[in-house]
Amino acid sequence: MIIVMKSHAPQAQAAHIMEELKSKGLEPVPLYGVERTVIAVIGEERDLNIGHLEAMPGVDKVMRVVQQYKLVSRESHPEPTIIDVKGLRIGDPKVLAMMAGPCAVESEEQMQSVAKDLSKMGVRILRGGAYKPRTGPYSFQGLGKDGLKILREAADEYKMGVITEIVDIRDLDDLVKYTDIIQIGARNMQNFELLKEVGNTKTPVFLKRGLSASIDEFLLAAEYILSNGNPNVMLCERGIRTFEKDTRNTLPLATVPIVKLRSHLPIIVDPSHATGKKELIEPMTKAAIAAGADGIMIEVHPNPEEAKSDAQQQFTPSEFKELLDNIKPIMEAVNKHL
Amino acid sequence: MIIVMKSHAPQAQAAHIMEELKSKGLEPVPLYGVERTVIAVIGEERDLNIGHLEAMPGVDKVMRVVQQYKLVSRESHPEPTIIDVKGLRIGDPKVLAMMAGPCAVESEEQMQSVAKDLSKMGVRILRGGAYKPRTGPYSFQGLGKDGLKILREAADEYKMGVITEIVDIRDLDDLVKYTDIIQIGARNMQNFELLKEVGNTKTPVFLKRGLSASIDEFLLAAEYILSNGNPNVMLCERGIRTFEKDTRNTLPLATVPIVKLRSHLPIIVDPSHATGKKELIEPMTKAAIAAGADGIMIEVHPNPEEAKSDAQQQFTPSEFKELLDNIKPIMEAVNKHL
Amino acid sequence: MIIVMKSHAPQAQAAHIMEELKSKGLEPVPLYGVERTVIAVIGEERDLNIGHLEAMPGVDKVMRVVQQYKLVSRESHPEPTIIDVKGLRIGDPKVLAMMAGPCAVESEEQMQSVAKDLSKMGVRILRGGAYKPRTGPYSFQGLGKDGLKILREAADEYKMGVITEIVDIRDLDDLVKYTDIIQIGARNMQNFELLKEVGNTKTPVFLKRGLSASIDEFLLAAEYILSNGNPNVMLCERGIRTFEKDTRNTLPLATVPIVKLRSHLPIIVDPSHATGKKELIEPMTKAAIAAGADGIMIEVHPNPEEAKSDAQQQFTPSEFKELLDNIKPIMEAVNKHL
Amino acid sequence: MIIVMKSHAPQAQAAHIMEELKSKGLEPVPLYGVERTVIAVIGEERDLNIGHLEAMPGVDKVMRVVQQYKLVSRESHPEPTIIDVKGLRIGDPKVLAMMAGPCAVESEEQMQSVAKDLSKMGVRILRGGAYKPRTGPYSFQGLGKDGLKILREAADEYKMGVITEIVDIRDLDDLVKYTDIIQIGARNMQNFELLKEVGNTKTPVFLKRGLSASIDEFLLAAEYILSNGNPNVMLCERGIRTFEKDTRNTLPLATVPIVKLRSHLPIIVDPSHATGKKELIEPMTKAAIAAGADGIMIEVHPNPEEAKSDAQQQFTPSEFKELLDNIKPIMEAVNKHL
Repeated sequence: MIIVMKSHAPQAQAAHIMEELKSKGLEPVPLYGVERTVIAVIGEERDLNIGHLEAMPGVDKVMRVVQQYKLVSRESHPEPTIIDVKGLRIGDPKVLAMMAGPCAVESEEQMQSVAKDLSKMGVRILRGGAYKPRTGPYSFQGLGKDGLKILREAADEYKMGVITEIVDIRDLDDLVKYTDIIQIGARNMQNFELLKEVGNTKTPVFLKRGLSASIDEFLLAAEYILSNGNPNVMLCERGIRTFEKDTRNTLPLATVPIVKLRSHLPIIVDPSHATGKKELIEPMTKAAIAAGADGIMIEVHPNPEEAKSDAQQQFTPSEFKELLDNIKPIMEAVNKHL
Repeated sequence: MIIVMKSHAPQAQAAHIMEELKSKGLEPVPLYGVERTVIAVIGEERDLNIGHLEAMPGVDKVMRVVQQYKLVSRESHPEPTIIDVKGLRIGDPKVLAMMAGPCAVESEEQMQSVAKDLSKMGVRILRGGAYKPRTGPYSFQGLGKDGLKILREAADEYKMGVITEIVDIRDLDDLVKYTDIIQIGARNMQNFELLKEVGNTKTPVFLKRGLSASIDEFLLAAEYILSNGNPNVMLCERGIRTFEKDTRNTLPLATVPIVKLRSHLPIIVDPSHATGKKELIEPMTKAAIAAGADGIMIEVHPNPEEAKSDAQQQFTPSEFKELLDNIKPIMEAVNKHL
Repeated sequence: MIIVMKSHAPQAQAAHIMEELKSKGLEPVPLYGVERTVIAVIGEERDLNIGHLEAMPGVDKVMRVVQQYKLVSRESHPEPTIIDVKGLRIGDPKVLAMMAGPCAVESEEQMQSVAKDLSKMGVRILRGGAYKPRTGPYSFQGLGKDGLKILREAADEYKMGVITEIVDIRDLDDLVKYTDIIQIGARNMQNFELLKEVGNTKTPVFLKRGLSASIDEFLLAAEYILSNGNPNVMLCERGIRTFEKDTRNTLPLATVPIVKLRSHLPIIVDPSHATGKKELIEPMTKAAIAAGADGIMIEVHPNPEEAKSDAQQQFTPSEFKELLDNIKPIMEAVNKHL
Repeated sequence: MIIVMKSHAPQAQAAHIMEELKSKGLEPVPLYGVERTVIAVIGEERDLNIGHLEAMPGVDKVMRVVQQYKLVSRESHPEPTIIDVKGLRIGDPKVLAMMAGPCAVESEEQMQSVAKDLSKMGVRILRGGAYKPRTGPYSFQGLGKDGLKILREAADEYKMGVITEIVDIRDLDDLVKYTDIIQIGARNMQNFELLKEVGNTKTPVFLKRGLSASIDEFLLAAEYILSNGNPNVMLCERGIRTFEKDTRNTLPLATVPIVKLRSHLPIIVDPSHATGKKELIEPMTKAAIAAGADGIMIEVHPNPEEAKSDAQQQFTPSEFKELLDNIKPIMEAVNKHL
């Protein structure tokens, strides 16, 4: 940790801070520069309270040297984490985990139909929202537990794994019972109580990046889950909020290599929510695969026009089949298979 | 609602959409322009699914004419909402609701001390976090229910109201029991299950704007609470996340007059979290009052250097006293009192 | 154009606006809705002044139906524009235009060395800054006209084309004389006088997106050049400024397919400036190619450690050779060659 | 300057960097921490090339301790700069410099009329654009030199000072001749050649913050002007571009106290461009004054409905008179006069 004193801060203030640091078992090294004094701190800085130091008289700013997360870091775990879901090895460098299905579970017929089509195309993880977080209270909020059962049955029928979103901590037991992967949506990325509770299970977790979360905040959210005992976390970039209005969100694909450099956890990309526009999904899927993504999540609905949410970004099964054909050369170029 | 067709979209596609709209009891009016066809829709557009329409063949984009919220709108309720908390009329144009106290409840001594000082200065609402949402799992997470009791006792001793944050839906009964105002933090602004549950109580709710929420999303989050039956909602602008790095967040004070134009709910400003820097809090407090804010929330700690969180933005009681003196002329200029 | 009146705006205000529109040869169609009146306008809306209409009494907001640009639009020119630079067909779907070279021209030796290496690898466009726009006045500002000559000679020696940036309108004649492509940097994207002047030449222009420009503003900047008579414009996405701090800028690759949908102009990606970090350049180059980019601009320096600017993002020639080898499978997957 | 090495970087890499630093006359101090080595650098860091250091093998990141600007810093010049324009002392703590007038100079009548009204109200600086930077090439581009003359004559008639924008470096002589303050617009904040040239004059400069410029980039742009010899620079906050769509830009008023802390230059606020909406201008003007702004720039047009640009944000003279009356109590509260 580096503590930069204000210019003209009296020596006594730096001395006071150094006392404080020593009392915590750290070694402060003062550097008397031309314009300012800087105190470098040797020792375990993760336990230090930055705000506390910044509040001390004479301090201008405090800069961390190491990250706050440990368990999710590549340094602590050099090999990639591979999560096995019904035989699909998510995180394996040779695998592209394709997760597809409708935005929301709407009926048994819908899910059976889409599961049948997707499984035939080689998709092994079925998605579908049973509980839907909606911006306004007057929008469709999902079928709830009935939706979970419909999703599970459709997946079982076609030997697929299931991913669905949790929106209420009180539903956790049901989620653990009916699904193979629990999704935590962007709006809940910093719902820390929820993170702790899913950390107490062993069910794989699919954690979406918050709309305005930094990558370090994203990794720290994952750290909440790992530090509670659940190592099976995969991350998902789904776009951030910027000044751009041409896409629903802005998809920053550099997240993929950055996460790979800093962490051992798999990183998936969701081009449907990131762009919000059908015509951009194929090029962004190709780009995500080329950038090194471990998986892709795409919305597919038997009849998008009738969808109860996010209709404009859902593919029909035949459009999705075309996408799978079109991304094949890119998958081969990076040596990945479904 | 306005539906803009793609240029060169065949007439049959527009016809198909108009059929659809009519079947829902709406009146579509086609406008055949130079380059494109536009369909204007007359009727109750709030019930229409924009995504559904955007997914229909030939549609380029769909634009709403009216807002999705109803109960929070100024149109539905022209008079300002005034929420009475222990005799303080929050939302009354003549009142500046000052809420102050430490970031986190740390001990009985701390809370008694600060409550005593603040009540003497005329502050009538005591804040303090019993449950702390922290970015990383290794930071202080609050005293929990013990913190709630300490806070309540300190407030009762000095006849103050209490505001504290809820972070877990399962704590709601305790919050209702021990506090006068339930705070929903920025990270939970779109925790819709939590919004619904506090909507089922009658306890006043203090809803903070999410870091990257639009003002309409902010008002829609409040709509969740009102539509479940709780009309006692006050809003809080606490800064948004932008490219700026000089302040913790960017404080967009135009939120104050915009909320006043669109809604009848009180709007409070939190300059402590918005700036994250002590030296900016006084000028931003003055600016917020001048812009028309109904209240201010400021962090005050008996000994900021010892604070367990956000130390750098907390005032000492004597610094806070100075702030109260310095903002007095602005309060008089806008004809408000504590 | 769609004009939405305020709720409760008196009929006379809508009538006044309709008179105004008719007097300009347009056809207003009033739509009396449940809550508001909307006026749809049929006719050439590009000539209308939105601000003027928004200032009229009773108007709530005005929404455009068509874009303001004409010449750059795909509608006006369905075939892709192909710009021939020394035999390289930039914009041809089978071509990946690779532009490489150092951030700044520093010496004859440097440029001869890098040109020799790059031309051997198949690179046909040499970049190098003679005039450098630098954030601070105390940084290296470039060799100026001497740099231009050095760049030209090195390129001629190895039969390459030359691209370099213009920063002062008064240098235009020199730029036209010495270079094959004139680069307009992100900071000058809305230097409209400069856009007009390069529009008066026939030299191909490489227009970089401004740090916070919308895609429509970007296309309108290109429209300035085309409308002055120069059709040879290529666009360059080089990252936007967002809240993210992990990369110098955020690279929104959806720009590539969006520009392809809206315009016929070639679109190039600059991963060096977009990320600012060497280790992210290769994955982002692959992603850009997979997304459909017509070209890539990358910084290569014989000795990055000695570079006078942007050292941390420049490749050595041998690192660049490795990148070329690694992107080959992706280029083949999308059927493009250098 | 602080150089953080990668974890596990070999000692030889740190040694190589320290050699390099010593060869430049600086004193490196190595700190061997638990996880990483950090090199603190004592000496004049402004001359160091950060990119150069970041490109050296083994370096993870480099952090500056001091700012890059000197002349604009409060440290180099503790007293506030006061710029005298026709007797108005801009920057004097007791003065609120009010600059008003239409967005664009449109005719002699318009300017005479508005100058007459404004001067009667006590406004001493007349604004008006003769050269207009417009997003699209088909919009009104200003009257040019004729506009300058009209503006000058109107101001002289009513003994006012004149401020107008420069958009082309080749017009500088005319600007110096006809105006009292040269405005550099947001889009030209980093047009460094223009900054240097106005730095060669003695005419006061009004520098607007770029839409996505950091405050340090803003101050560095001013440093370009001061370092070329012109000390008469005032800064203007006019809003930044964020994800918000409810206002044209987001007005971050914390800029006012931050600039005051870091620099001695006057800081003005432009609420017209920052919000783009008439109904927000008065509250934001009050807030800006309360935050400590040295001046306000507001658009006033004799007949906004007829304005050729930005009509929706221009006040009529009588609306402006009302604003002046309404801000009076706030001006008195902060002890400022026109």
